[in-house]
Amino acid sequence: MGLTEKNEEEEEMNRRKEDDPEEAAAKESLSIEQIFASKEVPPWQKQVTIRALVVSFVLSILFTFIVMKLNLTTGIIPSLNVSAGLLGFFFIKTWTKLVQKSGMLKQPFTRQENTVIQTCVVASSGIAFSGGFGSYLFGMSEVVAKQSSEATSAKDIKNPALGWIIGFIFVVSFLGLFSVVPLRKIMIIDFKLTYPSGTATAHLINSFHTPQGAKLAKKQVRALGKFFSFSFLWGFFQWFFTAGDDCGFVSFPTFGLKAYENKFYFDFSATYVGVGMICPYLINISLLVGAILSWGIMWPLIDNKKGSWYSADLSPSSLHGLQGYKVFIAIAMILGDGLYNFLKVLSRTLLGLYKQLSKKDSGVVIPVAGNSSPQNTPSQSYDDQIRTQLFLKDQIPLWLAIAGYVTIAIISAATLPHIFHQLKWYYIVVIYIIAPPLAFCNAYGCGLTDWSLASTYGKLAIFTIGAWAGASQGGVLAGLAACGVMMNIVSTASDLMQDFKTGYMTLASPRSMFVSQIIGTAMGCVISPCVFWLFYKAFNGLGTPDSEYPAPFALVYRNMSILGVQGFSALPKHCLTLCYVFFIAAVVINGIRDAVGKKRASYIPLPMAMAIPFYLGSYFAIDMCVGSFILYVWGKLNKAKADAFGPAVASGLICGDGIWTLPSSILALAGVNPPICMKFLSRGTNVKVDGFLAS
Amino acid sequence: MGLTEKNEEEEEMNRRKEDDPEEAAAKESLSIEQIFASKEVPPWQKQVTIRALVVSFVLSILFTFIVMKLNLTTGIIPSLNVSAGLLGFFFIKTWTKLVQKSGMLKQPFTRQENTVIQTCVVASSGIAFSGGFGSYLFGMSEVVAKQSSEATSAKDIKNPALGWIIGFIFVVSFLGLFSVVPLRKIMIIDFKLTYPSGTATAHLINSFHTPQGAKLAKKQVRALGKFFSFSFLWGFFQWFFTAGDDCGFVSFPTFGLKAYENKFYFDFSATYVGVGMICPYLINISLLVGAILSWGIMWPLIDNKKGSWYSADLSPSSLHGLQGYKVFIAIAMILGDGLYNFLKVLSRTLLGLYKQLSKKDSGVVIPVAGNSSPQNTPSQSYDDQIRTQLFLKDQIPLWLAIAGYVTIAIISAATLPHIFHQLKWYYIVVIYIIAPPLAFCNAYGCGLTDWSLASTYGKLAIFTIGAWAGASQGGVLAGLAACGVMMNIVSTASDLMQDFKTGYMTLASPRSMFVSQIIGTAMGCVISPCVFWLFYKAFNGLGTPDSEYPAPFALVYRNMSILGVQGFSALPKHCLTLCYVFFIAAVVINGIRDAVGKKRASYIPLPMAMAIPFYLGSYFAIDMCVGSFILYVWGKLNKAKADAFGPAVASGLICGDGIWTLPSSILALAGVNPPICMKFLSRGTNVKVDGFLAS
Repeated sequence: MGLTEKNEEEEEMNRRKEDDPEEAAAKESLSIEQIFASKEVPPWQKQVTIRALVVSFVLSILFTFIVMKLNLTTGIIPSLNVSAGLLGFFFIKTWTKLVQKSGMLKQPFTRQENTVIQTCVVASSGIAFSGGFGSYLFGMSEVVAKQSSEATSAKDIKNPALGWIIGFIFVVSFLGLFSVVPLRKIMIIDFKLTYPSGTATAHLINSFHTPQGAKLAKKQVRALGKFFSFSFLWGFFQWFFTAGDDCGFVSFPTFGLKAYENKFYFDFSATYVGVGMICPYLINISLLVGAILSWGIMWPLIDNKKGSWYSADLSPSSLHGLQGYKVFIAIAMILGDGLYNFLKVLSRTLLGLYKQLSKKDSGVVIPVAGNSSPQNTPSQSYDDQIRTQLFLKDQIPLWLAIAGYVTIAIISAATLPHIFHQLKWYYIVVIYIIAPPLAFCNAYGCGLTDWSLASTYGKLAIFTIGAWAGASQGGVLAGLAACGVMMNIVSTASDLMQDFKTGYMTLASPRSMFVSQIIGTAMGCVISPCVFWLFYKAFNGLGTPDSEYPAPFALVYRNMSILGVQGFSALPKHCLTLCYVFFIAAVVINGIRDAVGKKRASYIPLPMAMAIPFYLGSYFAIDMCVGSFILYVWGKLNKAKADAFGPAVASGLICGDGIWTLPSSILALAGVNPPICMKFLSRGTNVKVDGFLAS
Repeated sequence: MGLTEKNEEEEEMNRRKEDDPEEAAAKESLSIEQIFASKEVPPWQKQVTIRALVVSFVLSILFTFIVMKLNLTTGIIPSLNVSAGLLGFFFIKTWTKLVQKSGMLKQPFTRQENTVIQTCVVASSGIAFSGGFGSYLFGMSEVVAKQSSEATSAKDIKNPALGWIIGFIFVVSFLGLFSVVPLRKIMIIDFKLTYPSGTATAHLINSFHTPQGAKLAKKQVRALGKFFSFSFLWGFFQWFFTAGDDCGFVSFPTFGLKAYENKFYFDFSATYVGVGMICPYLINISLLVGAILSWGIMWPLIDNKKGSWYSADLSPSSLHGLQGYKVFIAIAMILGDGLYNFLKVLSRTLLGLYKQLSKKDSGVVIPVAGNSSPQNTPSQSYDDQIRTQLFLKDQIPLWLAIAGYVTIAIISAATLPHIFHQLKWYYIVVIYIIAPPLAFCNAYGCGLTDWSLASTYGKLAIFTIGAWAGASQGGVLAGLAACGVMMNIVSTASDLMQDFKTGYMTLASPRSMFVSQIIGTAMGCVISPCVFWLFYKAFNGLGTPDSEYPAPFALVYRNMSILGVQGFSALPKHCLTLCYVFFIAAVVINGIRDAVGKKRASYIPLPMAMAIPFYLGSYFAIDMCVGSFILYVWGKLNKAKADAFGPAVASGLICGDGIWTLPSSILALAGVNPPICMKFLSRGTNVKVDGFLAS
């Protein structure tokens, strides 16, 4: 589900980019391609350089760590495109400068190469999300199954193992690419879809490669580096005080012990402060509203009904008790929000499609190469001419796309049932027949609204395939696996199209984009499972609610699958009623948001965001609000600086803390434990402990 | 002894002031009095206004809290003149603005009034230092006596009680004023002594009252206010986590538990970060060097000799063990430094005096009032003319000074033996005969070097009177009491002369200065004992080494007195040798500092500053170095801003944390305890504690 947030954030990023003074300057000069006219566009083989792939590989590992950490902590993943663009630029620029000094530079650093890196890194780290390590894939494991206290028989469980995960991801991750690649001309040139995120990234890359852009980029990189170091060192410092459970800054009862019990505290996480700086204010406020509503009001009230609504003897993590309300009410809201947006985007997609097809007569003018009197034609059109010309130069043959899709589909249909015995080959064939239209829908909708519905399509697969398979046939696992297949296809499809848009605007060849995407995906198929494996082995209690890495959506996805297969019978008293209420509330709130207009909608919280703290507690919402607050104050003090450096600072905070998990997990694997426990005791307990220690 | 630091800091403050752009501008315009020519100087009765006294009273309480806190924690007291000037300006300016709006303003706010406030506040909070609450006075108490494990019989102890403290301070604090007031013309006009601190304060007040100065002052006040709030809230926040000993941020083992045991940690004290920002870099570095030398090297080495150099059975606080080395080596260094500087300043005083007297023929031109052709005479001399004219206008009759001195001396000699039976009336008479020349020496030396030697004169009294009284006659207490009498006289004398210099430069009348000083001293005689009493009642363990308020110099002073009376017999093995080494080292280092010239001397640590952490540990040295570091980085980023706002930010940090002790002590008195203990346990202990808590 994180994807929904992801794209909302990207939209916001985009909005911010457009406020960027550099951006505005670039727009004022009217024609970007006139500025770049003197720079030669290298052939596509020279855009995908070895050095670009090396840098992509390094950055992919970095970003996979970050995405994985976010996956396993809260499931909220901000857009890392800006960081990827920035760091890619920085690495190659340093590289070329060093090589230039040695006099051996054969090829200058171009924006096309930059785009290739960006595409490759995003494709690779995208797998860390769409691979479902925090959702459907991990939801199959025994750890999560035990918490849901339903369907824990062997046929409903598949524990993670490096082998089958890599295999699974490899056979499902490339289908999306082949399914939509033939449609690129229609979407980018004929329909002229906006793809806000892709456009924003292209603007960023273009601005880096103009002289004053390089200067700004350098400053941004410096800010990023500074906060990267700070965040890394802060993570390192915190580590020393975490010997034992409930130790260290992550358990700091900032607002008192009572509030801490209800999960209201600031946990000093640089990551989520950074995420809060990138996410729009509305998301952060929605999270806080949701947290207050749930942990501040509802859960304490329901807790009072213990013994009446549900048995008082249950373990705290039993889904038949309070935990059940938390999980299922959250699911109800997520589904309500998802359904509303699915119908909304679908109707807009169909409407848009209808309009496009009905005005087909107007035709699309394909400019003739060499026809250039740039001073006479309007500059916007000059840009478009150049771009269209280069976009159409390097073709990807249709037969290749179809052959690729069919081949992979066959391999996949043959392989997957061996990985998941519960997933019959005919389910897979059905998915692969339905998938291309859905992938197209998602890519088109995303182009219009910047809103990818990958996780919603995934949930659709859970319920349909799960119900089809049925409980006795291991429908829970079949549903989760089907979800994975579907999510990977539709998610990579919309990612690819975003990248084509970026490539179109930076004159990168579609071929180099496609190749880079394939290489990136292949990297991701190996890196992501390995990184997940490291987390899985290094941190005990991964996936349990009170651990450092609760992986909240793993349980949510599993329970959705159980719900799809078994119905509502297992829910505690009144839980279903509350679920209906929140499902309807989510739809209604979304409806109101659309009805009141964009301006007033920004004061109405997002149901999707509200649902996340229902299960997790509000500590990360507080972190994120702190981030928002910092950005807000900074913006008040110096708007231009906050706009230019806010994303860089946020990225630095996220990256530093994210990469600290690498040494920290290595330390954990090596059995090196932190030396000190920073403990928080009530005064009464402290007296007892002091007495115990003195004796 | 803190005074020595105090004045070094003031010197530094002064140096900084001179770098101030505002200051430079004021100097460029050459004649300050020309700028102020249009402003009428009110008669002296109108300079000491009711509103000024009300503001002084409020600020006196604030600063007394701060000074008292510093007294009782480390004994390092930075110059608060700038804060007093700033806040005084701010309060009266707000007041006059409000009254002006209501149309009832009878008298505008003048720089003379500002000077009166500044004088009154400094006089009042000066008592908090010279009253010896952190040194000789508290050194008489049982708590401290128990630690020194010598001379704990009833005749050597006098526990604090509000009554006798107020009485004692009242009878000794006014003598200094009367003793030097007749000499003001000689010192200020004839000798033209510089009094760097007084001059700096005058520059500050003058600059506030010019239009652009008022604007800067406003900004500075805003910065001060911001950091005041931050520091206050930070103190408040910290409080919640301090239920129990070794709890909270003050016990944060920043560099690990091993380092914490050796008192190396950052204790998150806003006060000492602020103090570090005000103190010159050299002092902070000296503290750190001293801390590393003692706690990092010497104490661990001596600790290894346990059982050989001293009995292993002793309690950790026994002066016959490791504690003895800590205390007496520190005393040796302090005495070595004090002796060197005493001889240095004395020789310079005598030399200066000789020069002044030998060129007496040149005479002093007293300008005739009304003789004003300012455009023709050089402006420097114009300033001097106006100032001298006003300085000489309001006289304080000589008979008043002599009568005042003699009256108070008689009252004092009659009263003091009733307070301290050990202090015979003839000791007092001797002190009062010797005191005026010493007060003159101190005032003169301070005018030359900005270095007040009050605490050195106090130590002189300890040793002479203590030895005279002898052990059997309660010489320990007699020495401490004599120290108090002496310190109060010489300290107030130099303070008064500093204020006369400030008054001279701001055209404030000597009469208003004198009256304000007397009123301020009277306020201080009541406020300081009351504030001390609040601390004494509110915080348990006040004066014990491991408590929040160890009052380190109380023990140091008591031990000096014991040393003076009983000799070196009580010291542990090799301690005396080490004391000699450090005494000589202090003298030699000072000698080298003077020999190599001012520039290179700034790389050689100050022995006095090095000695302080010997006894206390290095946590506050680390705080202060953090403050230094912040200022250094700030200066690198923006020199002008750091210079203009550094002192304001530092004052804000100090004042906020200082004033938080007021509510915190009230909470303690009311029996409201903090709810949470933030505890730091080693991993092994934590496992045990978790086991204990689970059972």
